[in-house]
Amino acid sequence: MNAGASIDPVRLLRDLNDLRAIGASGTGVDRPAFSPADRRAREWLAERMNDAGLAASIDGIGNVHGRCARPRAILSGSHADTVPGGGWLDGAFGVIAALEASRVVNAAATGAIGIDVVAFADEEGTFRGTLGSRTFCSEVSADEFNRAQDRHGRSLADALEACGWRGRPILRLDTERHLAFIEAHIEQGPVLDASGDQVGIVTGIVGLRRLAVSFAGRADHAGTTPMTMRRDAGAAVAEFAAGLPRVLVPIGGASTVWNVGMIRLAPGFGNVVPHLGESIIEYRDLEPEVLFAADEAVAAFAAEVAGRYRVAHLIETIARTPPLRTDVGLAAALERAATAHGALHRRMPSGAGHDALVIGAHIPAAMVFAPSIDGRSHHVDEDTAVEDLIRVTRILTSALAAVIDADRWQRSDSSA
Amino acid sequence: MNAGASIDPVRLLRDLNDLRAIGASGTGVDRPAFSPADRRAREWLAERMNDAGLAASIDGIGNVHGRCARPRAILSGSHADTVPGGGWLDGAFGVIAALEASRVVNAAATGAIGIDVVAFADEEGTFRGTLGSRTFCSEVSADEFNRAQDRHGRSLADALEACGWRGRPILRLDTERHLAFIEAHIEQGPVLDASGDQVGIVTGIVGLRRLAVSFAGRADHAGTTPMTMRRDAGAAVAEFAAGLPRVLVPIGGASTVWNVGMIRLAPGFGNVVPHLGESIIEYRDLEPEVLFAADEAVAAFAAEVAGRYRVAHLIETIARTPPLRTDVGLAAALERAATAHGALHRRMPSGAGHDALVIGAHIPAAMVFAPSIDGRSHHVDEDTAVEDLIRVTRILTSALAAVIDADRWQRSDSSA
Repeated sequence: MNAGASIDPVRLLRDLNDLRAIGASGTGVDRPAFSPADRRAREWLAERMNDAGLAASIDGIGNVHGRCARPRAILSGSHADTVPGGGWLDGAFGVIAALEASRVVNAAATGAIGIDVVAFADEEGTFRGTLGSRTFCSEVSADEFNRAQDRHGRSLADALEACGWRGRPILRLDTERHLAFIEAHIEQGPVLDASGDQVGIVTGIVGLRRLAVSFAGRADHAGTTPMTMRRDAGAAVAEFAAGLPRVLVPIGGASTVWNVGMIRLAPGFGNVVPHLGESIIEYRDLEPEVLFAADEAVAAFAAEVAGRYRVAHLIETIARTPPLRTDVGLAAALERAATAHGALHRRMPSGAGHDALVIGAHIPAAMVFAPSIDGRSHHVDEDTAVEDLIRVTRILTSALAAVIDADRWQRSDSSA
Repeated sequence: MNAGASIDPVRLLRDLNDLRAIGASGTGVDRPAFSPADRRAREWLAERMNDAGLAASIDGIGNVHGRCARPRAILSGSHADTVPGGGWLDGAFGVIAALEASRVVNAAATGAIGIDVVAFADEEGTFRGTLGSRTFCSEVSADEFNRAQDRHGRSLADALEACGWRGRPILRLDTERHLAFIEAHIEQGPVLDASGDQVGIVTGIVGLRRLAVSFAGRADHAGTTPMTMRRDAGAAVAEFAAGLPRVLVPIGGASTVWNVGMIRLAPGFGNVVPHLGESIIEYRDLEPEVLFAADEAVAAFAAEVAGRYRVAHLIETIARTPPLRTDVGLAAALERAATAHGALHRRMPSGAGHDALVIGAHIPAAMVFAPSIDGRSHHVDEDTAVEDLIRVTRILTSALAAVIDADRWQRSDSSA
């Protein structure tokens, strides 16, 4: 349980800072997937993996894989790309923490199971969100691959070609080898920072609904049309947006979150009753039942509002992802490690999506969070106290060391 | 009281259709102020006024004035410009109805008072709303004149130059000559059409507040930020917009109207809690007291909402006009004329602004409405039944004939 005591904090921080320098932009990092900086970062990561005794490769989608010299492995890592103008830790921390943990754990491992390290490609969606981990899990069809374009219209194939990775073999999830996945990540939210906890043990990754909810009425002169004769799509969408909490609070729990991120009225003039009211709403929860109940309640509420204002309405699904419960055994190992290291920790859901959400649909997966100062992320101000980065790396390392010895992986036909 | 029986319906409709042809666009009319069509229309109107025995002139702002051969006059008319892609009656009807009425009334007038006809410039705000009538009333400063630009950045001076009117003398309201103003107009709303009334006797023109109400909070990740830790400017603006009726209904009366014509959230993405929520709201009423009470209640409500969501707020006044009560004597003359012509009529406020709102601040003014089919206006579908156009012109004519004989204009030093 004290493998984490053996990590080298100086090496950990040097690696983090070396990676930060690749694509540095002020205090932040601008390293979108398949950019020259992303290519250099992945080449640098492959070198560090090789130095750490892993057999490194960059595959045909840009995933960097460091394979240990054991027949089976617990996979650990995250992604190496950033949003444009992003921070230095989102993704990078989980990759470097896994690299450091692998050095310690693989050196001490005596059984059939070691630690593989991975740096997934394009988690942030330069082409598609979690493109690398979904490709790893064979979830990206040839059609999706061929249609993928970045916002400048560049094809994914061209982007891979520019990096020199096009046509390379794709490294796939091998459930015979890859027993489980543990991802360290910054929280990207304010919960740990506000509570004073030093570590978050992730109980699951929330499922998401993102809906476009629109109302269509009739444009009228806002001075000459009596209130009772209007079919006001603007009033309908405002009522819908404002009433959403009353619909969701009775259904959801303490960790249910929602957002109305966009409202638009057309034609959009002060003296014209809007004929169109558009909104984009989201809600997220860890419980599938809550999401299903919310789907029904939101649809019923939109219909009720539309009826009250005598307008038409339309609900379109933009995104719909199921929640993922993290593996109980892996989370317990992380929790025991946190306790062993004397860290203040709390169980918490992840409100954001991660590569672990993709991997966790196929093999057991878990996550551990480091606090984000002021909850800032996807911004140059994104930061975490150095002590917290070291602490979470120690906990990840201890947990991985414990997990490779867990009874659950032992097989009668073990090749160890 | 039966002067209206003497109008020539064929001539009225021919004039209306001749004017409609100038700038015709499908069933509508595209004749924005100072466009080539607007210039041709005003030159055509000046000729018709001269033909009718009026001394016509086009002044230095584009107002067309037809002066009768009497020392004093009741002024009647409206505007001759349209919104881009507008209808054939908004403004035009009031000008042509006044022209027809002047033919009848001036021919029969025996006293010191006749009918002057006016076609005001740029009521629709190509440069500034009610520019012509405000210039007539000396309400446009040299500074406003010099700064006025259309949406293409053309100066007002250049627009007048292109029409050949730049530098001409400005015809001003002369309270010795111009005793009162009566404007016929289409309703531009659905009230008469829905009630089956044939004529609207306008009791007043509502005052207006147009406010930009904005809330500023903090952008946060919509998945990772607990609901209780947000400063959600989008939720604030939705709550404000949706709650406006609850604030205004107890203050206002049956004819109070309001509108939320614009809502905008920034940054406007589904997964980001909005840091900015902007709205443009309006409310209108005939009672100054209602408007003042609404000003206070809306400001208090915005502050309450801002406090509840822990966001800042700002209220900016975009437009603020006082209501105008139409002249009781002139409205009574119109009402008696409507009764005499057997017309179904109702008293009603005007929910839209008109040149009469400007003129009425200086001399007694009144308005009479013809029904708008389906309440449509500012649109190619704008229309009124021919019988209604004739009926309202008869009523205007009878009222003007009665008004020039009214005791109120008689002076001890009468020059008649």
